[in-house]
Amino acid sequence: MATRTSTAGWPCSIARAVDVLGDPWTLLVLREAFYGVRRFDELQANLGVGRAVLSRRLDGLVEEGLLERRRYQDRPPRHEYVLTPAGRDSWPVLATLLSWGERHRADPDGPPILLVDDRTGAPVTPVVVDAHTGAALDPRGVRVVPRSDAAREEAARRA
Amino acid sequence: MATRTSTAGWPCSIARAVDVLGDPWTLLVLREAFYGVRRFDELQANLGVGRAVLSRRLDGLVEEGLLERRRYQDRPPRHEYVLTPAGRDSWPVLATLLSWGERHRADPDGPPILLVDDRTGAPVTPVVVDAHTGAALDPRGVRVVPRSDAAREEAARRA
Repeated sequence: MATRTSTAGWPCSIARAVDVLGDPWTLLVLREAFYGVRRFDELQANLGVGRAVLSRRLDGLVEEGLLERRRYQDRPPRHEYVLTPAGRDSWPVLATLLSWGERHRADPDGPPILLVDDRTGAPVTPVVVDAHTGAALDPRGVRVVPRSDAAREEAARRA
Repeated sequence: MATRTSTAGWPCSIARAVDVLGDPWTLLVLREAFYGVRRFDELQANLGVGRAVLSRRLDGLVEEGLLERRRYQDRPPRHEYVLTPAGRDSWPVLATLLSWGERHRADPDGPPILLVDDRTGAPVTPVVVDAHTGAALDPRGVRVVPRSDAAREEAARRA
């Protein structure tokens, strides 16, 4: 949905995720979903996006299994869009985008928004670690190993 | 660069990051940069993307300060593209995309690639935690607080 050239079939988990999530409006629709916004008109008002564009992104997210469409009114028919488990799993992507924006696109006097713990109000700083060791993840300390035949072929072409 | 409607000035760190990073080819160019690929022709061959599209993405990433263009040959002039510190800071976004793809777009027998520790070869699972507490970050346990005037105005419009 997101890319004109689909990368959904590439032997790479990044490319496959990018195919679903690598689109500005898709990411902003997900941001709204995490804010609890479920209705078309409210999404449109908050994002200031055209109806056709929003409609395509919502259809794509439903098709890809990140949002579920639920009818909440019959006459006229009205639907709301609710995060599925796969949709909720996109949260780390949004959290790391927020971190990058906070660090690199702040206003002169600081970032426009703060992420805080809902209970304590303490500021929260998203950081990516290895679930097994708890160590901060450094791109220089990891490498990618091909697992499928297609990924091995691609690795061989690169070598 | 990435969005037709620029969200660079929105009072939201997610929207500002999305403006730079919310594009499929931009994310895949960054993937290549983390693989150590620096040259136009190699990027083009690995991604199978048109020259004009790749050129625009590279220019955008240089303009936004994520890649640095370095001349490595004079006749004919040739440049390579190297990650800046702001570019390297996009790694958590790629790592969380990889995690999502690994979980939700695996092949029937598992994900096509594995992320491993470069030294030990042990599998690495990127997960987002709060840097202050080390606790896994749950969207239901955090909220966003407006900090700037523009963000407060937007929050008031939503309420």
